[in-house]
Amino acid sequence: MERFVWKSRIRFVDTDATARIHYTAVFRHFEIAEDEFFRHLGFPYNTRDSALSYPRVRVEAEYLQALLYEDVVDVAVTLDRIGRSSYTLAFQMEKAGCTAARGKITVVCMELATQRSRPLPEDLVQAMALYQQPPEPSQAGG
Amino acid sequence: MERFVWKSRIRFVDTDATARIHYTAVFRHFEIAEDEFFRHLGFPYNTRDSALSYPRVRVEAEYLQALLYEDVVDVAVTLDRIGRSSYTLAFQMEKAGCTAARGKITVVCMELATQRSRPLPEDLVQAMALYQQPPEPSQAGG
Amino acid sequence: MERFVWKSRIRFVDTDATARIHYTAVFRHFEIAEDEFFRHLGFPYNTRDSALSYPRVRVEAEYLQALLYEDVVDVAVTLDRIGRSSYTLAFQMEKAGCTAARGKITVVCMELATQRSRPLPEDLVQAMALYQQPPEPSQAGG
Amino acid sequence: MERFVWKSRIRFVDTDATARIHYTAVFRHFEIAEDEFFRHLGFPYNTRDSALSYPRVRVEAEYLQALLYEDVVDVAVTLDRIGRSSYTLAFQMEKAGCTAARGKITVVCMELATQRSRPLPEDLVQAMALYQQPPEPSQAGG
Repeated sequence: MERFVWKSRIRFVDTDATARIHYTAVFRHFEIAEDEFFRHLGFPYNTRDSALSYPRVRVEAEYLQALLYEDVVDVAVTLDRIGRSSYTLAFQMEKAGCTAARGKITVVCMELATQRSRPLPEDLVQAMALYQQPPEPSQAGG
Repeated sequence: MERFVWKSRIRFVDTDATARIHYTAVFRHFEIAEDEFFRHLGFPYNTRDSALSYPRVRVEAEYLQALLYEDVVDVAVTLDRIGRSSYTLAFQMEKAGCTAARGKITVVCMELATQRSRPLPEDLVQAMALYQQPPEPSQAGG
Repeated sequence: MERFVWKSRIRFVDTDATARIHYTAVFRHFEIAEDEFFRHLGFPYNTRDSALSYPRVRVEAEYLQALLYEDVVDVAVTLDRIGRSSYTLAFQMEKAGCTAARGKITVVCMELATQRSRPLPEDLVQAMALYQQPPEPSQAGG
Repeated sequence: MERFVWKSRIRFVDTDATARIHYTAVFRHFEIAEDEFFRHLGFPYNTRDSALSYPRVRVEAEYLQALLYEDVVDVAVTLDRIGRSSYTLAFQMEKAGCTAARGKITVVCMELATQRSRPLPEDLVQAMALYQQPPEPSQAGG
């Protein structure tokens, strides 16, 4: 499995009155990593078929460690799940080698004209496949 | 069960190039509803014991319907779960009577000096109890 | 001269690690006041001629007093200047009767097809006229 | 005069329903360039004397050209003015060699204990001096 990592930095605008990152700012960093992941794959959103849109339908995040102004973080992007018309990306944000936050974002391929989901473009599916996380190892031995 | 509802409006800064709300902006509206919920209960965060902090440890959201600039929404806040040292709030954002987004946010009570979780203040627990969602009705009749 | 005032509240997401409002968040509150001003006038942006757009071409703000989480503010909106194809709104944000921030935003009326400025709609000009600030009183007595 | 340039990219969260950058997002990019400028000088804010704070007291920006999702921009930072207790930075954001936005931000050195301005640290003044813009050439020869 390939792993894509984007280096980012916590900015002042990302912080709140606790002096730590505001939880919504973590999603901004995930979004930047997502964009760079797709640029790396050759499929940045702004070059995709303009008859399609890719809205987010579900997101989640966990915060495990305080992130402070000027912290440098690595955001790893992997493919958590790929379906017929949607994909779920998994993000892991590390600070000094420890996971500080992680999250998942599910994106649907939607036809603008009908506002309905439709199958993902085949070439996009193939480009993402290399980044799919292996399934969790089965408990049962063999 | 009591239900707290905060009326909000989608602002221009909340939108993105799809002309719909950017998914992170939904969390800003959840946060405002959370603040107003706790003010309503008599426990706004800025009046709580300053030796404690209430970081978010987990958030999630689902987006079911497009939200556009100037849309008026109702954000209902209920208590999804209350533990010894944390609570999970559930948010439901309705537009014209239909659910447009929903989410959950888990908040931990942390002692600033030790940076460790500690039991929630008892009076806060009691104030929130009225807003706890009833358990899902059991399938099995009797 | 009429004066439009919008009551707002500083939110947690508006703060930064100094525990004061982040300067960009002040513009979010100005934008909300602007939207409510134009709704009050009967000209909210989303009901205007869709062949036109109203981009901002210049903004400025001054910060005179710390704004903290949960502070309630009054944002007064007046018309600073109206030209053939643009208008400048002036904002004054007061906290407990003292000016905490003020700013100006210049908006141009642009034709989307040509991407060029064009004269403001006459009915909009008339609606705004009541909110024009009087010119500074001349020093010279008479 | 030295010139510091930071390369940035317009992100999806930066856009609004016009498909162009929201004007407040330009300030986020200015802030990142400011942080990188001071890191380059050896004076990042988070390493400065913690008894001092550097609030912004005045900002302004002009928008000359549409900025779109994925646009790459160069943000040049220069020193517009340096006073006894404050400095004004000037920002110029270029897209494909044309100025798309420019702005100024005035920062005051404040003593946290007294909440009053105080003279800028001498070593900071010296480090910034190289980046001072030359005065506009006088029209009058001679």
